[in-house]
Amino acid sequence: MYGFQELLTFVLIMQTQDTITSAQNPRIKALLQLQQKSACRREQRLFVVEGRRELMHCLSKGYQADTLFICTEILKAEQEYDNLIAAMPSCKCIYVSPNVYDRIAYRGGTEGVVATIRMKEHGLDTLPASPEGHAPLYVVLESVEKPGNLGAILRSADAAGVDAVIVCDPLTDLYNPNLIRSSLGGIFSVPTIACTSQECIQHFKSNGIRILTAQLQDSSLYYDTDMTLPTAIVMGTEATGLTDQWRLAADAHIRIPMLGILDSLNVSVSAAILMFEAVRQRQG
Amino acid sequence: MYGFQELLTFVLIMQTQDTITSAQNPRIKALLQLQQKSACRREQRLFVVEGRRELMHCLSKGYQADTLFICTEILKAEQEYDNLIAAMPSCKCIYVSPNVYDRIAYRGGTEGVVATIRMKEHGLDTLPASPEGHAPLYVVLESVEKPGNLGAILRSADAAGVDAVIVCDPLTDLYNPNLIRSSLGGIFSVPTIACTSQECIQHFKSNGIRILTAQLQDSSLYYDTDMTLPTAIVMGTEATGLTDQWRLAADAHIRIPMLGILDSLNVSVSAAILMFEAVRQRQG
Repeated sequence: MYGFQELLTFVLIMQTQDTITSAQNPRIKALLQLQQKSACRREQRLFVVEGRRELMHCLSKGYQADTLFICTEILKAEQEYDNLIAAMPSCKCIYVSPNVYDRIAYRGGTEGVVATIRMKEHGLDTLPASPEGHAPLYVVLESVEKPGNLGAILRSADAAGVDAVIVCDPLTDLYNPNLIRSSLGGIFSVPTIACTSQECIQHFKSNGIRILTAQLQDSSLYYDTDMTLPTAIVMGTEATGLTDQWRLAADAHIRIPMLGILDSLNVSVSAAILMFEAVRQRQG
Repeated sequence: MYGFQELLTFVLIMQTQDTITSAQNPRIKALLQLQQKSACRREQRLFVVEGRRELMHCLSKGYQADTLFICTEILKAEQEYDNLIAAMPSCKCIYVSPNVYDRIAYRGGTEGVVATIRMKEHGLDTLPASPEGHAPLYVVLESVEKPGNLGAILRSADAAGVDAVIVCDPLTDLYNPNLIRSSLGGIFSVPTIACTSQECIQHFKSNGIRILTAQLQDSSLYYDTDMTLPTAIVMGTEATGLTDQWRLAADAHIRIPMLGILDSLNVSVSAAILMFEAVRQRQG
């Protein structure tokens, strides 16, 4: 374990090594490819995390850093890198100039550090039957399109203590930078599984997990539906809703009442309302 | 009342008048200024709405169009303009070429119509004491910064049947294009009032409206708090929370339990969870 001063010393010594000053450097180009292309991420089994806070969440949940890209000019202004440095011995460290950091930083104010991280596998078989002694609560999203929405749902899922978020037949990869950003770390703290709808339905049926599908037709109000049993809340896209396979597999259909002139809520808002109703019922 | 065919005829006749083909045209420049600058909007008491759906919501709620900017090449592909045309006799109609429409359209897929709309005044004094016979439910946002968050809250407020959204000491104007867009029409259907926190607190105290402030300190779980009485749910910014004047004025402090590693929810998500708890309690 190293302190902030040790980190600074380490960083300053290391910096006598090369600092990359051009965004045309192959290692910088490779990093940008990882940020921008899901095919590159899939192939290399790596993704990109930016900023101290997200990186801390990520490492604390057992993810392994592959390479750290550090801009010491920005890093010097920051504190509390103790835990970060602890993860460094096992990974490469590359120093970049502020102009290069500007290019690789996906957003502003991210404290001089970007890292590539090794993907972890989460499969349906990793889900515990009775996590920490309570009836499991899952959120399932079928064919969710917008990474920002999925990230927002992961942020709320963390807050609601959801046991896993399962993305069926996904149209976005789980390590999209927009998703990571909008989840604020939720992607690391909430087990997130990608699989087919068929696999997921089969798993729920085999494990006695009640399937509640969010849909208007033949539905009950969500707060009149018991969510204290092992429960999966299943939601489709805002545009087309759920496919028939989920409607048919459902143990109950639930809806949020729409009392105004608009005909839908944002999917991440709907998800949060439903998750926190489960929280209310389970704590009540 | 005119039908779609009448509209097309009208549009095609009118189009023998000038079609603006340059974004440098003074009327186009003035429109862009209105979109981009809140000072222009305030001065002219006009704002901009884009797309058939939003425009319909807007006109159906008693707003008056000042000028319609129509691109007939795109309009021809659309149907159901019956209600739109009904609002046209009282307003100017300007035809623009597709290249100019591309410039004035704030987003894609908006069906060839952009309009300037006259602002309406909503003051605290316009709030009915007992709207439609039920105890009023208000959402108050202090110093909300991001137009997108405020728009998202208005969308949820419409769905939850909230009687008014009150923005205290706002840092954004209510007719910001991002706000209008993300509200999906909620800005028109939910009375939205801008005032100072002091005015708002005084109004609530004078009218027996219970003030529930969302805050962590000295708070109860939101679902253990009665929301069936006349209620205002008051929220601060994600970064700094509420100011002391609201904390001191509160009848109760409420919090959403945070069961994960993150320390906050998105403000529009929190607002939706709280509003729909009021819906649940009132319908239950």
